[in-house]
Amino acid sequence: MTYSKHWQTLYINVNLATMSDGGNSYGEVTQAALAVRDGKIAWLGKESDLPADFSATDSEVVVIDGKGQWLTPGLIDCHTHLVYGGNRANEFEMRLQGRSYQEIANAGGGIVSTVTATRKASEEELLASALPRLAALHQQGVTTVEIKSGYGLDTSNEIKMLKVAGLLADELPVTIKRTFLGAHALPTEYKDNAEGYLDVVCEEMLPQVVNENLADAVDVFCEGIGFSLEQTKRVFDAAQSHNLPIKVHAEQLSNLGASELAANYDALSSDHIEFLDETGIRAMKKAGMTAVLLPGAFYFLRETQLPPIALLRKHQVPMAVATDANPGTSPIHNIHLMLNMACTLFKLTPSEALAGITCHGAKALGMSESKGQLAVGYDADIAVWNIDQPAELCYQFGVNPLSCLIKDGLQVLMHNKK
Amino acid sequence: MTYSKHWQTLYINVNLATMSDGGNSYGEVTQAALAVRDGKIAWLGKESDLPADFSATDSEVVVIDGKGQWLTPGLIDCHTHLVYGGNRANEFEMRLQGRSYQEIANAGGGIVSTVTATRKASEEELLASALPRLAALHQQGVTTVEIKSGYGLDTSNEIKMLKVAGLLADELPVTIKRTFLGAHALPTEYKDNAEGYLDVVCEEMLPQVVNENLADAVDVFCEGIGFSLEQTKRVFDAAQSHNLPIKVHAEQLSNLGASELAANYDALSSDHIEFLDETGIRAMKKAGMTAVLLPGAFYFLRETQLPPIALLRKHQVPMAVATDANPGTSPIHNIHLMLNMACTLFKLTPSEALAGITCHGAKALGMSESKGQLAVGYDADIAVWNIDQPAELCYQFGVNPLSCLIKDGLQVLMHNKK
Ligand SMILES: [Zn+2]
Ligand SMILES: [Zn+2]
Repeated sequence: MTYSKHWQTLYINVNLATMSDGGNSYGEVTQAALAVRDGKIAWLGKESDLPADFSATDSEVVVIDGKGQWLTPGLIDCHTHLVYGGNRANEFEMRLQGRSYQEIANAGGGIVSTVTATRKASEEELLASALPRLAALHQQGVTTVEIKSGYGLDTSNEIKMLKVAGLLADELPVTIKRTFLGAHALPTEYKDNAEGYLDVVCEEMLPQVVNENLADAVDVFCEGIGFSLEQTKRVFDAAQSHNLPIKVHAEQLSNLGASELAANYDALSSDHIEFLDETGIRAMKKAGMTAVLLPGAFYFLRETQLPPIALLRKHQVPMAVATDANPGTSPIHNIHLMLNMACTLFKLTPSEALAGITCHGAKALGMSESKGQLAVGYDADIAVWNIDQPAELCYQFGVNPLSCLIKDGLQVLMHNKK
Repeated sequence: MTYSKHWQTLYINVNLATMSDGGNSYGEVTQAALAVRDGKIAWLGKESDLPADFSATDSEVVVIDGKGQWLTPGLIDCHTHLVYGGNRANEFEMRLQGRSYQEIANAGGGIVSTVTATRKASEEELLASALPRLAALHQQGVTTVEIKSGYGLDTSNEIKMLKVAGLLADELPVTIKRTFLGAHALPTEYKDNAEGYLDVVCEEMLPQVVNENLADAVDVFCEGIGFSLEQTKRVFDAAQSHNLPIKVHAEQLSNLGASELAANYDALSSDHIEFLDETGIRAMKKAGMTAVLLPGAFYFLRETQLPPIALLRKHQVPMAVATDANPGTSPIHNIHLMLNMACTLFKLTPSEALAGITCHGAKALGMSESKGQLAVGYDADIAVWNIDQPAELCYQFGVNPLSCLIKDGLQVLMHNKK
């Protein structure tokens, strides 16, 4: 049973990387067609299999000739800290000039400088500085972005960050998912009093965030330089009591077991995970979690410990890939570069890397039923690429091959490459 | 003595990174002004030092308010292989899928595949495929690009590549410098007969290239997998007999002494140089050569041997930075990423990295008297950046901060960022 007379747009003469097979060989359909109705994908398949009741001539469907280009799901950046005040160029330069850690700290470097600048900035200023970053991702084909709080570190400023993240969705046709990361770092006013700060996070910030409906998930930075496993558990318990899904910054610099802990809460994802072990991977698999790989931070920090890719493959834990865009450890607002780095630095195959920013990125955000694949009933968020094969998206870098971007069925960006 | 009445354009309220100090602290002039006449820089200095005879009101000079933005010299990419047929995405994917070297070779991988595709392509096709690569660099603020031959490997196809490189200058406002790299690799038809191939390079290709005025320099890939030191010397002798300056791909995978050899010929530059030793560095210094660092290839090949940055600093050998844009080992058409990688991977300071793509890039092309600096009498090739400090160009990546590009005194690109 088909309903081609209700289609609104039909793309013919295209190739599809549907990403519906979990990242194996792209879920390719060549010489294909794809129909859109009411912002959703209404049909897709071989062009030769177009339903018999469809006729381009007597139909009211707008037919678009894709000229052999490739369609992928709109890209998903599932882990960013896109909203922040100031930048850390000064600290970057001082470090390369050989200044000591103490000199940099004295000059106000480190996360403290970002917290200070973020607190100082108005909503308007934060919005204005975040917008070019989001615009860059949008122009690369990104249609869904996750944005975390975590540079306010007090109630009003955490709320401010989440509000600004929400306002970005009014500026550009990008779906924004917000994550509350109050437990990102200890603010200086709670130095040596982590428990006191977590009281505020769990009993003041989180209820207000929930009350104003400002977050889709809760995240914690569990690390020697962040929060302990026990402290992380406190925040997870609070999130669970509010029925908010959990994400975690885990095993980046050491293996504290945060991924395993998160699995006990049926978390969405564990992110970074360079030091994750097989026990943690088994727990993640059992809980249906996604592993989020962040090659930009790995690159920027010159890390050498690779995430356990072979074990993740062995246990079939889905691997997402994201920019981790943030001023301290990954000031990189380019998802195409993440594709290249996932392949070059982490040795993902191109189809795994592309799955990382489509179907598996969606999974890391709890959206795998509506985004990240080209499939009937899914949101018609679609990127059109002027390439001959999907691997080109990972292999080359610098020339943006995006030719057109479709959000909820509408063409929102047109580069007219072909 | 000033001639402000002859100025054509005056930029006020700008900050200058003149790069006239060899890359130390950018040659900064803050609260500055810069005047252009006949495509050259006619004056620059503190705005408060504008000559007494200048008056914005009664002058015919077009005065542009830079709104506190930063001006740098137009960027220079001094080492590229931008013109080539096909791409190597397939090989990239096969390698990551774990296929063996032999399988990839059987599938037509390696430089042979690029040579085959380049030979097969018409001038028009090569031009069409190179143009988006050059356009990407142009939009990043690049005003001068070097392009090498080396995928034709026979006379007519080497000539074709150099002609296409020249035609690119008609398409975009970018100065193109061409380098003849016939000795890039052995074509299959001369397998086991390097000397026979070099006969053609030296006695047939080079005279014709000179005769048609198609190259500004001659380059050789001197390496275990390329040409030996003795073979390299043959090509250098031929280049010298035609009075063409010399460049060399040297000490990338091993130390054969090619940089030292090139120094005997007063070469312009030695490029890659991961395995260069102090003897070679002394020779380069004595000959006034530039060291060209190629972090994109280092990254893409996952190399671990760092170029001898400390020794190059000690002997004050100028360090240029370039993309090495090529389909096999650096399919990267982004000079901003090279700034970030020069800092992140090679630990250059931001001012050294920026010097690498301005004043030292010019030096590597023998153009240090006319390009790569903001200085009176120099070509008015100028990039305008919406940044608060020059280090931002190296620190962040993804948001293009270029606001305006000026070539020979004319605004050729306007992003209207401010
Ligand atoms: Zn993060
Ligand atoms: Zn090269």
